[in-house]
Amino acid sequence: MSSPRKSDPILDPWEVLESRDMYSSPPWLAVAVEKVRLPDGKIIEGYHHLRMPHYVVMVAQTDDDRIIFLHQYKHGFRRACLTLPGGLVEQEESPESAAHRELLEETGYTADRWTSLASLIPHSNYECGRAHLFLARGLKKIAEPASGDLEEAHVVFVPEVELVERIRKGDIVSLSTVAALGLAHMRRE
Amino acid sequence: MSSPRKSDPILDPWEVLESRDMYSSPPWLAVAVEKVRLPDGKIIEGYHHLRMPHYVVMVAQTDDDRIIFLHQYKHGFRRACLTLPGGLVEQEESPESAAHRELLEETGYTADRWTSLASLIPHSNYECGRAHLFLARGLKKIAEPASGDLEEAHVVFVPEVELVERIRKGDIVSLSTVAALGLAHMRRE
Repeated sequence: MSSPRKSDPILDPWEVLESRDMYSSPPWLAVAVEKVRLPDGKIIEGYHHLRMPHYVVMVAQTDDDRIIFLHQYKHGFRRACLTLPGGLVEQEESPESAAHRELLEETGYTADRWTSLASLIPHSNYECGRAHLFLARGLKKIAEPASGDLEEAHVVFVPEVELVERIRKGDIVSLSTVAALGLAHMRRE
Repeated sequence: MSSPRKSDPILDPWEVLESRDMYSSPPWLAVAVEKVRLPDGKIIEGYHHLRMPHYVVMVAQTDDDRIIFLHQYKHGFRRACLTLPGGLVEQEESPESAAHRELLEETGYTADRWTSLASLIPHSNYECGRAHLFLARGLKKIAEPASGDLEEAHVVFVPEVELVERIRKGDIVSLSTVAALGLAHMRRE
């Protein structure tokens, strides 16, 4: 081809030719299979796409560099672990509002300095919703925790210097918790 | 109750009473709904569990502190982004072997110093497989990339000092990529 390429096929989007829901349980989960056309013209049948709610995860850090965690059983892990506070973004709620609400509900704390760390996609191929990560500083306890979640939780404070060891030992196993802690750490320099 | 509690109901596991596959497409995805009993005796119907393959993600870092990324279209993001090398753990393959294999296939590089960073669970409620994160140092190019994946990719080197800005700009949107980068960063101190 003598004419200049308008696009780079390695970066060109796939074209979704068909999408069919195979399982749906709103608002929690919908599993679609898509028929897609790749930039080279190849057709792929049955590529999965998982629609799941957006959620928030908050690194709530005290002035003396301790992080608020929830110690509770989580069914995805099949055991009790430490996770950062977080939860689903409700309909017609912004990620920021959800972060403020969930921090208060789950821990009883408010924060006066919020930083949006990133909005990230849990699965590179299937999507699986979106994780909105925040850093919260200037914490103040104004209530007792009252999450209304299926799981009750112990609210615990973990010194930042212990985090790597807690992850190494398996006390922290949540991918989104580690992403939020790691990104907060990277941004402090 | 006058007798001491043997367990803490907040940390006690839920009991799975029934599990039924609602959708299954091996080896990629199976969606089960479970009937579970909480420690307080409450019964929950229809709690989702998503069985998905284990995968590996590698922070491959050069001696001059650049990180190897793939620049490619990823359908989960619906656009081109930078992701760390990675891929699925094959049957009867260890995560370590998968990491070595995928790094070579996707980038053409081997590494002589490998560190297991963590094995993390992508979804706190539904599981969604497991992400095994590695740090690879002592890199040496021995072949051209030949991943065999649906996506071709540009292999690019991003200086570590640019990572925070790349995430802020949305060039990097993968949750597992950020978790691996962040954890590698936390462990260096």
